[in-house]
Amino acid sequence: MTDVAGQNVGFIGLGLMGKPMARNLMRAGAITTVHNRSQGVVKELVAEGMHAGGSPAGTAVAAQTVIMMLSDTPAVEGVMRGDDGVLAGMQPGTLVIDMGTTKVPVTRALAAEVEAKGGVYVDAPVSGGTIGAEGGTLTIMAGGAYEAFQRAEPYLQILGGRITHVGPVGTGQVAKAANQVIVGLNIGAVAEALALAKRAGADPARVREALKGGFADSRILEVHGQRMIDHAFTPGAKATTQRKDMDQAIELAAELGLVMPATALSRDLYDKLIESGGADLDHAALIKAIDPDA
Amino acid sequence: MTDVAGQNVGFIGLGLMGKPMARNLMRAGAITTVHNRSQGVVKELVAEGMHAGGSPAGTAVAAQTVIMMLSDTPAVEGVMRGDDGVLAGMQPGTLVIDMGTTKVPVTRALAAEVEAKGGVYVDAPVSGGTIGAEGGTLTIMAGGAYEAFQRAEPYLQILGGRITHVGPVGTGQVAKAANQVIVGLNIGAVAEALALAKRAGADPARVREALKGGFADSRILEVHGQRMIDHAFTPGAKATTQRKDMDQAIELAAELGLVMPATALSRDLYDKLIESGGADLDHAALIKAIDPDA
Repeated sequence: MTDVAGQNVGFIGLGLMGKPMARNLMRAGAITTVHNRSQGVVKELVAEGMHAGGSPAGTAVAAQTVIMMLSDTPAVEGVMRGDDGVLAGMQPGTLVIDMGTTKVPVTRALAAEVEAKGGVYVDAPVSGGTIGAEGGTLTIMAGGAYEAFQRAEPYLQILGGRITHVGPVGTGQVAKAANQVIVGLNIGAVAEALALAKRAGADPARVREALKGGFADSRILEVHGQRMIDHAFTPGAKATTQRKDMDQAIELAAELGLVMPATALSRDLYDKLIESGGADLDHAALIKAIDPDA
Repeated sequence: MTDVAGQNVGFIGLGLMGKPMARNLMRAGAITTVHNRSQGVVKELVAEGMHAGGSPAGTAVAAQTVIMMLSDTPAVEGVMRGDDGVLAGMQPGTLVIDMGTTKVPVTRALAAEVEAKGGVYVDAPVSGGTIGAEGGTLTIMAGGAYEAFQRAEPYLQILGGRITHVGPVGTGQVAKAANQVIVGLNIGAVAEALALAKRAGADPARVREALKGGFADSRILEVHGQRMIDHAFTPGAKATTQRKDMDQAIELAAELGLVMPATALSRDLYDKLIESGGADLDHAALIKAIDPDA
């Protein structure tokens, strides 16, 4: 394992998640070159001591490691395959790490394209939101050859608190899909349970309390259950993102001949929430699609 | 609060749960009189130092506290209202505690009937299975007037590890319904997620490991996720019981004008599992209804 200090790192995608992640790498001593579609955040980070890559290719050209934290699969494809893309700029031996939530077949194809250029590829999507990104406590699910994962590990340890090597390239994204299926369905479970409790004359806060420590206990009951009780739907993670991730999981399942009936139903309930104006609310707002009075 | 030692307790329903619970009360020093439909277990417990009530009425007649741990709502109604029932035998001042999973309207009606006889009623259903019953570590969700709950509390503390007073009579059963909704739906969530992981070429055991500590984490991922990975479906809680409890929750919701779409879908998936021969398997066997090859 190499250390991060003194290493050339390119970081592409400086949104709510990417910006604090790039900062954590610089604080750990990496020579950090950044790129982002809108330039305000680039200027801000350059003022803090980072370098501007100017393009994905320019960010990759001198980097031993390129990390992407982009919003969706088309953004990753554009950054990788564009005329000024990472594939055009990278040198042989470069490690490319995709930390966004990207479709599995695209992940596998991009990994092959990076390998054809003499590089290595790791998919390492995360769970834990902006708080986890800022604190360097993200849960990270990594896919890639073991040697590639070992090269990525020092960087992932700067960015996250719990890092698991799931298996070959793509399996980090598979784990993230599984994560999002469970998160969406567990939110729906807590929503129906607390809506029922309120209608039936029980205080939902007392019911949540009573369920702690038993088989119904979960991080979602703890965090999102409390949001439902407080009607506190400032995201966290947005309903639209949750919907997109579940849709992506359903698409992956369909390609493999698997029907996921509960996930499909949950996606439809998220559509209902989004159509009624809840797109930018926290994903816990799903309870509004079950019972507007809950 | 009174102590349990030296108190006359009647215990009705000596199944997998009730038998170890009665034993825990006797060990705590209660004078324990028991009744059960089949008599083998009664003889066994009498040999250990308990008394045979002979009927629900005979079990209640000298008891300060009567505890029921029965399999379903009709059993509770029969034990309470039958010719030799608890209501026929109980003295004024008796505390009746129902620790089974009973329909909310029946619970409220029985509480009124007990009060009309000068007694008090607490519904105190449990979560935690036979292991919790044996170890005295059950999660207990209690409904009843505060004074009634206070009388019940020393007994509940012998039987359980985490006791919550949810609110008035019936709210313990409401919390249990909420518990069973969440348990059933979280099992379905883990089932779809692990089935997807396996189809997509990831090791479900590694995926479960990767999800720990993140928002997808839950007691169900921990316990039932492991059962799915191991194909270990010896119950625990049976699929038929899970199905009954969810159906009861759906019935309660319908009476209140609430539709619970995910719970209804999950009940249908449990029907599919039961129809294909899985009635007596653990409720985690739901994954077979999602993907027989998972």
